[in-house]
Amino acid sequence: MQQTFRLVIDCPDQVGLVAAVSQFLAQHNATIVEANHHTDQQTGRFFMRHEIRADSLPLSLEAFRGEFEPIADRYQMNWRLTDSHQKQKVALLASKESHCLNDLLHRWHTGELHCDIVCIIANHPHLQQFADWHDIPYHWVDFDALGKAQAFSDIEHLLDFYQVNLTVLARFMQILPDNLCQRLAGKAINIHHSFLPSFAGARPYQQAYERGVKLIGATCHYVTPDLDEGPIIEQEVMRISHSDTAEDMVRKGKNCEKQALANGIRYHLEERVIIHQNKTVVFA
Amino acid sequence: MQQTFRLVIDCPDQVGLVAAVSQFLAQHNATIVEANHHTDQQTGRFFMRHEIRADSLPLSLEAFRGEFEPIADRYQMNWRLTDSHQKQKVALLASKESHCLNDLLHRWHTGELHCDIVCIIANHPHLQQFADWHDIPYHWVDFDALGKAQAFSDIEHLLDFYQVNLTVLARFMQILPDNLCQRLAGKAINIHHSFLPSFAGARPYQQAYERGVKLIGATCHYVTPDLDEGPIIEQEVMRISHSDTAEDMVRKGKNCEKQALANGIRYHLEERVIIHQNKTVVFA
Amino acid sequence: MQQTFRLVIDCPDQVGLVAAVSQFLAQHNATIVEANHHTDQQTGRFFMRHEIRADSLPLSLEAFRGEFEPIADRYQMNWRLTDSHQKQKVALLASKESHCLNDLLHRWHTGELHCDIVCIIANHPHLQQFADWHDIPYHWVDFDALGKAQAFSDIEHLLDFYQVNLTVLARFMQILPDNLCQRLAGKAINIHHSFLPSFAGARPYQQAYERGVKLIGATCHYVTPDLDEGPIIEQEVMRISHSDTAEDMVRKGKNCEKQALANGIRYHLEERVIIHQNKTVVFA
Amino acid sequence: MQQTFRLVIDCPDQVGLVAAVSQFLAQHNATIVEANHHTDQQTGRFFMRHEIRADSLPLSLEAFRGEFEPIADRYQMNWRLTDSHQKQKVALLASKESHCLNDLLHRWHTGELHCDIVCIIANHPHLQQFADWHDIPYHWVDFDALGKAQAFSDIEHLLDFYQVNLTVLARFMQILPDNLCQRLAGKAINIHHSFLPSFAGARPYQQAYERGVKLIGATCHYVTPDLDEGPIIEQEVMRISHSDTAEDMVRKGKNCEKQALANGIRYHLEERVIIHQNKTVVFA
Repeated sequence: MQQTFRLVIDCPDQVGLVAAVSQFLAQHNATIVEANHHTDQQTGRFFMRHEIRADSLPLSLEAFRGEFEPIADRYQMNWRLTDSHQKQKVALLASKESHCLNDLLHRWHTGELHCDIVCIIANHPHLQQFADWHDIPYHWVDFDALGKAQAFSDIEHLLDFYQVNLTVLARFMQILPDNLCQRLAGKAINIHHSFLPSFAGARPYQQAYERGVKLIGATCHYVTPDLDEGPIIEQEVMRISHSDTAEDMVRKGKNCEKQALANGIRYHLEERVIIHQNKTVVFA
Repeated sequence: MQQTFRLVIDCPDQVGLVAAVSQFLAQHNATIVEANHHTDQQTGRFFMRHEIRADSLPLSLEAFRGEFEPIADRYQMNWRLTDSHQKQKVALLASKESHCLNDLLHRWHTGELHCDIVCIIANHPHLQQFADWHDIPYHWVDFDALGKAQAFSDIEHLLDFYQVNLTVLARFMQILPDNLCQRLAGKAINIHHSFLPSFAGARPYQQAYERGVKLIGATCHYVTPDLDEGPIIEQEVMRISHSDTAEDMVRKGKNCEKQALANGIRYHLEERVIIHQNKTVVFA
Repeated sequence: MQQTFRLVIDCPDQVGLVAAVSQFLAQHNATIVEANHHTDQQTGRFFMRHEIRADSLPLSLEAFRGEFEPIADRYQMNWRLTDSHQKQKVALLASKESHCLNDLLHRWHTGELHCDIVCIIANHPHLQQFADWHDIPYHWVDFDALGKAQAFSDIEHLLDFYQVNLTVLARFMQILPDNLCQRLAGKAINIHHSFLPSFAGARPYQQAYERGVKLIGATCHYVTPDLDEGPIIEQEVMRISHSDTAEDMVRKGKNCEKQALANGIRYHLEERVIIHQNKTVVFA
Repeated sequence: MQQTFRLVIDCPDQVGLVAAVSQFLAQHNATIVEANHHTDQQTGRFFMRHEIRADSLPLSLEAFRGEFEPIADRYQMNWRLTDSHQKQKVALLASKESHCLNDLLHRWHTGELHCDIVCIIANHPHLQQFADWHDIPYHWVDFDALGKAQAFSDIEHLLDFYQVNLTVLARFMQILPDNLCQRLAGKAINIHHSFLPSFAGARPYQQAYERGVKLIGATCHYVTPDLDEGPIIEQEVMRISHSDTAEDMVRKGKNCEKQALANGIRYHLEERVIIHQNKTVVFA
C-alpha cells in the first residue's frame, strides 16, 4: 500500500487559503492523490483534506509539520497531518452479539481496515474465540461482579495500557459514563441499530416493529455524553414489510449495522471525517 | 384494463378459513389473478386479499356479497369486496408547493392512478392552473379570511358535495382538526417530508439538516388526530452528504415525497392496504 | 426454532387448486405460518408455498406425503414437502478470496443459515484456517497438479461422499464442466460479481470500471452450463462514482456479493425458490 | 439565485496546477462557493471545477477569460468558464410517452432546472398539450410522411433555428443518424430505460422480464453514434420481483427514468460533468 500523508484542515473561510496551501504543496513538489474541499455557507467554515504521495515529498512528516505551522497559524487552522503507514491502535468493545465483531475482524484480517486491533474488551466471555482465532488479547470485564464504576475504570485502564487511538463500540450494550465519553471525544465510534434520530435508546428493532415503519436502518456515530445524539458518520437503511417480525428485523438489520460501522471506521481511520459542532464532514 | 373484483379480509386466524374462502371461489369458478395472505403471529390476526377476474364469475358484485356473507359471519371477518371498474372519488388538498400535485395529476392523466380526481382544494390560489389544465374544479379556501374553523367546515362540505372516498393531503400544510381526522379515518392519506418517526412536525428538512443525518426521506401515512403518528403505508429515503444544504434537501427530498405518496395512494386505491391497530399490511 | 413443514408446489393454473390444497390442510388441522401464491399470467403456471407448524399436524412427514399424493397427481403438480428440522448438507467451494466464505460461515455459526456445512472445497490451500476454526473438513483440490478433468472428478466424488444437497460457489473461480452443471441443476448456487446480464465472464469490476457505470452489483444465481446465464435468485447494487478505482469497486462490491449470496442461499434452504424455465419465483 | 461563474478544467496532472489556479482566484479576491478536484490515476488526467460568486470578482466574464488564458495555455487545459445567469437553450425531443417530458417541464417550471426550454420536437402530435400549457413551441416532425432523412434534416434545422445548446432525448424513440450524433457530441443527452450495459436496444423492460432480473433501472448518457454506448452520467435502479409483469416494470421503471434524466440534465446544465474518453467525471 502506497504511503501517503493526509493533511486535514478546518478553519474560517478566507480568500487566499487554498492558494496558500496549494502553493506550499507545489513548492515541495507534492503529488496529490486526492483533494477535497467543503465550505459550510451557513457558518462560514472551510474544510479541506489532501492525500499526498509521501515519496513525492523531500520532507519527513515532522519537517512538513514544522514548515506548515506558520500557514496554519496565519489562517487559524485546526489541522492534522498523518502518515498512512502509522497505523492507529484500535480497541473493539463488544458484548454477546458477534456479527459486527466478526465483520470488522475479517475486514482487518484482509487489509481492508488499515489499523492495529490491539484488544477486544467485552462484558461477557462469549466472544473469546473470535479474539483467539485472530491472536488478539481478549479482556472480559465482568460488570456483574465488578459493578459499573469499577468495570469502566478497568476499561479505561485497558485503553491506557494499549495506548488506544480509537475505541469502537461494536454492539457493546453498556452506556459509557460521561467522563469517559468526554475523554474519548472524537475517538470513540458507536453503531446504533436504528436510523437515528428514530428509535434512540433500548430495543430499537422492537420500537421499529411497533411503529410499523417500512424501512429499518443503522447509524454509525461518535460517542458523546448524550446517548445516541453524537455526530453521525454513516447510515444505512433497508426495506422491510408487514411480514417481517421484530426477529426478522434483527436479522436483516445486521447487514446495515455491519456496513455502516465498517464504513464509518474506515472513514475515520483514513482521516476522512471532520467533526464540526454536532455534525460531520465526511470526504468519502 | 381487465375488470377485477378485490376481496379483502381480516379476521382472527383459524383453521379452515382459507379452505372456506377458496372453496367458495372455486365453486363459482373464479379465476384468481393475485392472492396474498398474512398472519400476524403476535396478535393472531389473519389478512387476505384476492384479486379475481370479474368475467370468470357468474355472479354480480352484489350477488357475490350476498353469498359470501355467511362465510364472513362464520369467521368474524372484516371484509370488503370492490370492483376495479368502480373508480374511487379522490380529492387532492394542496397549498403552494406543486410537485406532489403535478406528479399525481400526471399519473392520473396517464391512467397509472385509477380513480376520479373530483376536485382540488387549496388554502392558496397559486395552483389553480394545474387544475384548469386538467379540467378539475379548484377550490381556494382562504384560511386567512375565513379563520380555521370555517375553512375546515367549508372543506368538509366540499368533501360531502363531491362524495369523496379518499382525501389526499398532497403537501397541504394545514393540520386537520380532530373531528375531521376521525371522520376521515382510513380515508385520508398524507405525505410527510421525513422518514418518520424522525422529524415529525414542522420544517423536517431543516431538522434533518441540523441533526446532520446522512439520509433523508418521506413517509406516506393515514391521517389520524395524532399529528404524523398515523399508520405508515410507504417510505422512501435518499442518501445525502455534508455538502447538501437544507435547500438541497428540499429539492432532493421531493423525489422521495412524490414516489412514496404515489405508491401509497395506488396501494390504497387497489385495495392493497389493511389497517391493523396503528400499522398497515400492504400487499404491494 | 419452531419445526415447520414446507409444501412447495408448481403446476398449471386451474380453478379449484387452492381450494383442494387448503381443504386438505384444514382437514388435518394445519396451522399455516406463512402462505404465498403466484400465478404467471403469461405461461399460466401456478406457484404456491405453505409453511406449516409441524406440531399442529397429526401426521408424520411421510404420512403427509402419502395422503397428499393423490391431490398432487390430480393437478399435475411438481411438488416437494420438507421438514425444517432436516438440515440440508451444504458444500462451500472457494478459491483464495475469503469474504463470502467468512460471511457464510459466520451466518451459519450464529444459526442464521440453517444447514449443515459439511465441507469446504478449494482450488488453493489459503483458506484452510477458516475451515479449521469452524471444524469443517477442508479439501484442497490442486487444479495445477491434477489437471481440470481430474480435479472436477475429485470434487464430484467429494460431493458424493458428503451426500451434498447444495453446492455453493463462494467466489470459486473455476468454471464447472457441463456434465457437473447438469448433475447439480437447481442444486448449485453461484455468486457473480456484477449485476447480470452486465459484465458476465471474467473481471467484471474491471469491465464496470472501463464502461464507466455509476452502479456496481452482484448476482446470486443457479449454475447452468451457460456461464453466468442461470436463473437469478437475488441481486444487489451499490452506487459508485468517477472517484472509485477498479480496486475501490472490488472492495465496495464485496458487500453486495456477501449479501446477495447469503440471501440467495437462505431463500433456497428455506424452500422459498421455485425455478421456472430460466427464471425464479422467490417467496422472500 | 446567486450569480456564479463556473470554471471547469481538465488537463494532464502536474505539480503546481492547483496552486496556479487558486493563486489566480485569490488574486482576484474570488469567493469560492464549491470546489471539486479529481485525478484519474490511471491516465494521469486532472479534473477541476470551481463555482465562484460573481459579485466577489472585480472582473467581467470576458476579462476573466482573457486573464486566465495564459494559465490555461501553460498547463494545456481544456477549459470553460460559464455564467450561471446565462441560461442554456434546451430542446426536448419526445415521442408519445409523456412521463419524462412532464417531469422535466415541471422541474423547469418551478426553477429546479435552470435553463430555457426553447422548443419541444416530437415524431408524434400527441404531446402538443404539454407544450401549450407551458407556452413552448411544439414541432411535430412526421417521420412517416417525411421519411427518416428529411425528418432528421428538419430537426437539425430546428436545433439551428433555436440555437440549441443542449438536446434532450426524453424517450424519443428514434435513433439519431451518425452525423447528427457527431455534431451534437457532448451536447445531447438520452435516457435509456435499462441499467446499461444490460438490455441495450429495443424493448429493454421486455428483455429484463425475460432474463428474470431482480432489479430494473435507467441510464442517462450522452448520445454517440454507437447506440446506448455513450458516456454514462447517471443511473437509477429499483427492486422488482417475480410478481412484476413486463407492464409493471414499465410503470415502476418510469420513476427511475425520470430521476436519472432530471439529475443528468441538472449536472450538465450546472457544468458538473466532464467527459473523458467514454466516461464521465460528475462533480455531483
